[in-house]
Parts: sequence; structure tokens; C-alpha cells
Amino acid sequence: MDWDVMLTPYKQAVDELKIKLKGIRDQYQLTSKHTPIEFVTGRVKPVSSILEKAKRKNIPLNELEEQMQDLAGVRIMCQFVGDIDAVAELIHARTDFDIVEERDYIKHKKRSGYRSYHMILRYPVQTIEGEKPILVELQIRTLAMNFWATIEHSLQYKYAGQIPEEIEERLQKAAEAAFKLDEEMSKIRGEVQEAQQIISKQRESMRKN
Amino acid sequence: MDWDVMLTPYKQAVDELKIKLKGIRDQYQLTSKHTPIEFVTGRVKPVSSILEKAKRKNIPLNELEEQMQDLAGVRIMCQFVGDIDAVAELIHARTDFDIVEERDYIKHKKRSGYRSYHMILRYPVQTIEGEKPILVELQIRTLAMNFWATIEHSLQYKYAGQIPEEIEERLQKAAEAAFKLDEEMSKIRGEVQEAQQIISKQRESMRKN
Amino acid sequence: MDWDVMLTPYKQAVDELKIKLKGIRDQYQLTSKHTPIEFVTGRVKPVSSILEKAKRKNIPLNELEEQMQDLAGVRIMCQFVGDIDAVAELIHARTDFDIVEERDYIKHKKRSGYRSYHMILRYPVQTIEGEKPILVELQIRTLAMNFWATIEHSLQYKYAGQIPEEIEERLQKAAEAAFKLDEEMSKIRGEVQEAQQIISKQRESMRKN
Amino acid sequence: MDWDVMLTPYKQAVDELKIKLKGIRDQYQLTSKHTPIEFVTGRVKPVSSILEKAKRKNIPLNELEEQMQDLAGVRIMCQFVGDIDAVAELIHARTDFDIVEERDYIKHKKRSGYRSYHMILRYPVQTIEGEKPILVELQIRTLAMNFWATIEHSLQYKYAGQIPEEIEERLQKAAEAAFKLDEEMSKIRGEVQEAQQIISKQRESMRKN
Repeated sequence: MDWDVMLTPYKQAVDELKIKLKGIRDQYQLTSKHTPIEFVTGRVKPVSSILEKAKRKNIPLNELEEQMQDLAGVRIMCQFVGDIDAVAELIHARTDFDIVEERDYIKHKKRSGYRSYHMILRYPVQTIEGEKPILVELQIRTLAMNFWATIEHSLQYKYAGQIPEEIEERLQKAAEAAFKLDEEMSKIRGEVQEAQQIISKQRESMRKN
Repeated sequence: MDWDVMLTPYKQAVDELKIKLKGIRDQYQLTSKHTPIEFVTGRVKPVSSILEKAKRKNIPLNELEEQMQDLAGVRIMCQFVGDIDAVAELIHARTDFDIVEERDYIKHKKRSGYRSYHMILRYPVQTIEGEKPILVELQIRTLAMNFWATIEHSLQYKYAGQIPEEIEERLQKAAEAAFKLDEEMSKIRGEVQEAQQIISKQRESMRKN
Repeated sequence: MDWDVMLTPYKQAVDELKIKLKGIRDQYQLTSKHTPIEFVTGRVKPVSSILEKAKRKNIPLNELEEQMQDLAGVRIMCQFVGDIDAVAELIHARTDFDIVEERDYIKHKKRSGYRSYHMILRYPVQTIEGEKPILVELQIRTLAMNFWATIEHSLQYKYAGQIPEEIEERLQKAAEAAFKLDEEMSKIRGEVQEAQQIISKQRESMRKN
Repeated sequence: MDWDVMLTPYKQAVDELKIKLKGIRDQYQLTSKHTPIEFVTGRVKPVSSILEKAKRKNIPLNELEEQMQDLAGVRIMCQFVGDIDAVAELIHARTDFDIVEERDYIKHKKRSGYRSYHMILRYPVQTIEGEKPILVELQIRTLAMNFWATIEHSLQYKYAGQIPEEIEERLQKAAEAAFKLDEEMSKIRGEVQEAQQIISKQRESMRKN
């Protein structure tokens, strides 16, 4: 398989969505509102990970595009847990893609401790052979959730899903600390939002003069 | 007027279209075909130029968005005159914007010597208040056309449209030289396209091994 | 003052340092080592903040460049507290700028709860009038430190340094939660580093085939 | 050989030089002077081209870094022939790299018709193992020179250096047309420079208000 050719529209989808979602953040910053989007990252799954996952999940290579929903991945990081719903609403209001699936691992966190809000988008990429719908996994998380998830992912990989009990325990404690941080931050959220509005308004008034 | 706020969706449209059109070029390069897109630039009109043009054309500031069609501008440069039609076809085939106007200043060059292919697009930008259609001027030109046009634009500006005859003459000679270059290049186009395919195929076969 | 002209070499310094420090991260990722740099951001201080700080600290505008050391700011975020020293060492080893000051607010955290490692660099920018040394403030922090600091900064700004006691208390609790998260993460660091090496090596071996 | 690892500092050098040279252009635009730099591109030589050239020139793979001076390539395009000297002077004035070689194929154009100004730079990249000097080929050309050179390069490649006489002739005519365009442009240069200064000054005065 010519992976470069096959993955090109996925790369294109990721690049376009990054520009679009970063644009949302910029709009908030200009209009004196608290921005629910802290930053945006994206990636196309590395070929080694695609092969490994296809083998593990028994997905034939010619069915990758339908059955592996995270070949293209975009991640939105938020400052506060409460921002995640605001972002999900923004995503629902857009007309440039469809949402084909939605999973709330925040209300229903995984047994491992994993928390995150997932959406699968069907995003139309314009190729030189015409429009091609591309599946993209969108993850919305706080920075603390992301921090923990990155670490858990590395360990799952290392131990091929069989993390030793002692390490499992440390991971649980880290998950609790991340959760606690999100909680303390939430209590202070209203204050911070007001403060950010004051800063934005001041900058705005400078621009107008 | 808060220009930053007003022009933000225009900036967004330019950024998105640049990513999209550069993506087209990358697709060609991967699939061993001659790419009709050499490079892509874009800009939002500077506020000083907006004000100057509004005054000159008698456009009230509250009708800018409908009446000034080049607040957002994107430019595609091509190697060969023959590539311009190929690009225009690609633009027609896309489903992510509408074409609201089309002017062929290549078949019908302006009296000044100006040659370029113009399209006005209506491009939907997703803002935090919902979808907003944005007019974008798309110019498609060869590098030689662009070179000359940039220079003519500077001189028109300097002489406020009243270029002295002697300079007008030099400008005409430069336009002829640019036209001649495009002609000579066209005669060699078939050869170059074949050559580029050979190079691309070789790189492709390396990637597969 | 023409702020655009005055701040141009500061913007240039920030852009160059961002490219350079991101390059460091990429090198680690290629060579199968844990990267101590998670991501890099940078900014030139907004003019409104410069004016406000100049007034507050009594700095005459013609002495800004010597006395305001954070006109240009670059921030490196790390996954683990232990990575911060590794980054500081890397910075010391470089020959493309001088270090003129260094403050360790991690060993000696501020009374407010602020933790971060600061360096002031003297970075030579090549301008069209010759080489110009530019002061740049480099902050090195974990994600948890950064999270807390961002919030504290907003609140300091809102209350002009006089944060009410009740909010001060919530901020302290958030600082403790951030500290606790860093601590739990540190306990798991060795495991994660080994895991990341396994992943990198696998990708590397794929690239070579 | 792990090409990704070997070429990483070359990619880094190209990225840094692109940011630096684009910065030069931005400085000119702000200070109301005609910018001698129209745009800047850069690339690391593709592995397929490295292997092909190594074979053709009999360079052992373990001597690539010393003997193949264009592994990293940066190109500066100018509007006018007269700008090329101005750029070369700017390059000489910089202190962030050494110039190890210089060839003027404009005063002494190649028999093929090739015109361009070449410099070989020794640019220090800061790697995680310390400073590493990297050779970079810098080409300075007008847009017309570049246009022609791109085409000639494709044809040389296709015919492995043995371009048929008939095509050779067409290429010569294109070279003459490119040269003629540069000549006509030079005659108009003074006018355009003055015009650009007027535009820049107007924008500058707007920024100050």
C-alpha cells in the first residue's frame, strides 16, 4: 500500500480542522469572552500504530478507512471541565461536517480512570478526484485529563494492556490528583472568566483608539 | 469600527482557503501528475487600502462587506498559461464554496496589459455566532503575469491612476516581455510535464520500498 | 512611538527561538529518548500590558528595552518536574545566546504558590541595521505549574494585586492540587520514560525498513 | 542509514534560515524601504535525489555531509536583478553563519543559460549533542531566473543530461525571454521602488495613529 497517498486526505482533514478550530479560539479572544478552547493539536496515526491496531482488532487493511475511526485525530484542550460542554455545543452548531458518533467518558469515565469527550466527525475533503468524506476522531479534554491520558497510553502500550498492579495503583493516584486539580479549578472558574473579560475588554479598547 | 473584529472572518476564510489549495498541490505531487498550482498566497486587504478604495469608489463603510469583493484575496500562481484552465476546473468541481462571478482577463486582457483569471467565491466561515458567507476574490495567474501585475499596481498607486506616458511605455514593454516569456514556456510545457512525471514516479517507487 | 517597528526584533527573537526549541523536541523523538520538552509557546508582550507595567514599575518608555526583560517571552512546558532540570541543562549547553540571569522558583516557590524556572537570555537578532541583542524571558514549567500560573495571572490582573482572601484561599487549594498532580506524576516518571523509548524504537525500526 | 536522523539537523538549518530571512523581508516592509527579498523557500534534498547524485558524482555515503553541499538548500527570490547584490550584502553582514564559498552565475552565466547567485554557508545548528556546523546552499535569483531554472532542471533530469537539440533550442529561447523580462523590469525599477515607499509610508502613518 502507498501509505503516503492513502493518508493524504486524512492529513488534509487534520490540517483544515486545526485551522478552523484555532480560528474559533481567536474569535473568542477578540470579543472579550472567555475562550473555552485553550489549544488544538492534531495528528495522522503513524503507520506503525495503524498496523499494530489492525492486527490487534482484526481489521483487514482494505477496510481500514471505514473501521478505524481514528486514522485522523484532532484534540481540543480546555482550561476548565465546564468548557467541554461549551465546545461540544460549538461543534454541534457547525455546518461543515456531520457528527456520526458521540461518547461522553466524562460523565461515564472508563474503569481505567480515563476521562474525555469523544466525537466522530464525517468531514468532507475536496480531493483532485472529487469530494471524499473522511472520519475524524475529535477528543475534548481538560489539560489535566490530557496529561493523565498521555501517560496511561504510554503504559498500556509498554505492557501490552497488562499493566502490573503496583503501577496500576500509581496510575490511579495520578488520575485522582488530576481529577482533584480539575475540581479545584472549577471552583475558581467564574472568577477567572470575569478576569479574562476585563483583560480582553482593555485590549479591545486599545485597538479601537 | 473595530476593524480587527470585522476582518476576523475574512482572515479565517483566507487561512482556510490557503490550506485547502496548498493541499491540492500536495496531492498532485504525490500522484505523479504535473501540478497546475505552483504556489498560493493570500491576504486580507490592509485597512488603509480599504479606506482609500471606499473613498475612491464611493462605498459607504456599512456596505463594505457586500460591495468590496476583495477584502479577502487569494492568489494561485501557475507555471504555465495552460495550467490556469486546469485550476479553474478544479475550483468549479469543489463543493465547499459557490462561485458568484468569473472574469477572464487572459482571453480579454485589460487595456493596461493586465492579464489574470478572476473568480469571486462565496465561502462559508463558521463563526461563534453561526455560519457567515464571506466573499473572496481568487486570482489565478502565471508567475510572469503576477510579476508584471505587482509592478503595475505599485505604479498606479503612486501616480493615482495617472501614469506618465514615458513610464506607461516602459510598463508596456515589460508586459510584452512577460507575455513573450509565457509563450516560450508554453511551447516547452509538454516536455516539462513528462519530465516532472518521471521524477514523481521515481520518488513514489522509493516511498513504496 | 512606532510600536510595530520597535517590537519587530522581539517578534523575530520569539519566532526563531520557538523554531529552535521545537527542533530540540523533534530530535529527541527521533532518537528514542524521552523528550523533556512537551511543547513551546512564545509571545511578544501586548502594547497595553507594556504600558500598564511601565506605569506600575515606573519605567520610562525610552528605557523599556533594558529594564523590561519580558518584552519577548518564550515558555517551555514539560511533562515532569524532573524534566525541568534537563531542559535547563540543554539551554546552558547552547552557543547561540547568553544567559544573563536565572531564577529557580521551583526550589524557592513564591509566597503566592507560583512555581517556575526563569532564565533571561540575551539573544542576537540580525536586523537590516546589523546585529541587535534582545532580552528574552524563558520560563520552564510543568503543565500543572503552567495551568495554575495562567489562572493566578488573570486574577492578579483583575484585582490589581489585591485578591480577596476567600479567592486567595481557593487559589491556594488549586496550587496544592497542581503540586500534588506533579508529585504523583513524578512517581510514575521512570515507567513512562521506558514506555516512550519502546514506542520510539519501534517507529524507528519501521522507518529503517 | 537512518536518513531521518541524519537529515534532521539539515531540516533544522533550513527551517531556521527561512524564519530568519523572511524576518528580513518583514523588517523592510515596516521601514518604508523597498524589500530586496520577494520570498524565501527551502528544502532538504529528497533521499532519492541524494542517492542518484552520490552515484553520479561518485561520493561515498559516509562523506555526504562534507562533499554534497546542497543537502540543505535555501532560495531567495527577488523582484529585480539589482536586488540580488543588495541581498548578497545583507548575507555578508550577518554574524550567525560563515560564508565558505560564493559563485556568481549572473555575471558569468552557465553555458546552458543558467543564471543565479550561489553561496555556501556554514550554519551552526544546536543539536542535543552540541553545536554542529551544517553546509547550506543559498541561491539568490529573480523570479524569471527561477522560473527558467526550474524548467531546465526537470529537463536535465528527464534526459539524464542529454537534452535533444530541438528541445535545447526551445529552452534557449525561454532563457532569452526570461532575460529580456529581467531587463525590462530593471529599467522600471527606480519608479517601482519610489512607489513602494509611498505605499509603505502611508501604512506606517496609519499604524501610528
